[in-house]
Amino acid sequence: MLKLYYATGTCALATYMTLEEAGADYAAERLSFKDNQQNSPDYLAINPKGRVPALVTDRGVLTETPAMLAFIAQSFPKAKLAPLEDAFAFAQVQSINSYLCSTVHVAHAHKGRGYRWATEETSFADMKRMIPKTMAANFDLIERDMLKGPWVMGESYTVCDAYLYTLTLWLDGDGVDIATLPKVKAHRAAMESRPAVQKVLAEQKA
Amino acid sequence: MLKLYYATGTCALATYMTLEEAGADYAAERLSFKDNQQNSPDYLAINPKGRVPALVTDRGVLTETPAMLAFIAQSFPKAKLAPLEDAFAFAQVQSINSYLCSTVHVAHAHKGRGYRWATEETSFADMKRMIPKTMAANFDLIERDMLKGPWVMGESYTVCDAYLYTLTLWLDGDGVDIATLPKVKAHRAAMESRPAVQKVLAEQKA
Repeated sequence: MLKLYYATGTCALATYMTLEEAGADYAAERLSFKDNQQNSPDYLAINPKGRVPALVTDRGVLTETPAMLAFIAQSFPKAKLAPLEDAFAFAQVQSINSYLCSTVHVAHAHKGRGYRWATEETSFADMKRMIPKTMAANFDLIERDMLKGPWVMGESYTVCDAYLYTLTLWLDGDGVDIATLPKVKAHRAAMESRPAVQKVLAEQKA
Repeated sequence: MLKLYYATGTCALATYMTLEEAGADYAAERLSFKDNQQNSPDYLAINPKGRVPALVTDRGVLTETPAMLAFIAQSFPKAKLAPLEDAFAFAQVQSINSYLCSTVHVAHAHKGRGYRWATEETSFADMKRMIPKTMAANFDLIERDMLKGPWVMGESYTVCDAYLYTLTLWLDGDGVDIATLPKVKAHRAAMESRPAVQKVLAEQKA
């Protein structure tokens, strides 16, 4: 059985939803960031990075969302969560996931986690002021060049969809009005009509 | 034929070396960042992100290093550049590539590209001061938990190796003494004994 460590409000939601979409046999264990559980000795023994998500498998622990999403797609091929037989199309999926991870998530992280890259309060305030602009620029690129519609890759739902959806949940708090992004807005609505998405969102609220 | 757009001193080196290791039929075209060629209309038509690398294939353009490295490994299976038949081991490769992309490369980018996330000179100076600390912390994790030796994944060379090597070239400029990282140092030496690495380094210097 797979075990996912997650925290609410984090990118771990993408992996959680993808496990559900895959029909995987899994358990999800919530960590409290408020109580700093991600830095407890027990959890650091599982994931030395002190971050979520982490996916415990019978072969060992995996971290990094793009790696986990591709792993789930490959481990549950019947769920058809990625174009596994087409190296180019699979690379397009991975390119989008990598952009979401290394550019969009990183931009967002400058709002509340500026201490990763700087030390002064003035720098943190400067970073925070820029969030609406960087997130809007990133999502303009997604709207224009990446999201084919109705799903990210077009007619087929893939692991990209759960990841994109997860990051769109941050837009409001980051000062970006989703109404300015009609394709992204329609994508969010389409995601919220999926039973797997509804189930995981309900479990996170419980 | 594949065509790689790159610039010297960038992460594009990882993809360049991997094309060479794969025995791919490819051309490499150098862009001058000094002349801002990555933002020329011609190049933006190829890669709207205005970054390198970009890999032009007969199916379209790919961007994002982790996606390109997996694509090359899958497209040239005889080169055995990733454990393609083992979803868990492949995910480990991808996890390392994702970490190099979204954590290590991002940390380094705060030295010279702080304008991506802030606007004030004081913030840029603050970010620059922190580079030796963040890069040392990232590479300590690599040394301790990721680099199995002699190659990243152990006995088998994979696409991770070209990527890790590329980022180690930034250590000196980032204020990290590679002598404090014996496994990383030995890995760099092992990489520089490979004919493909030597060939690409020579071409970049030409």
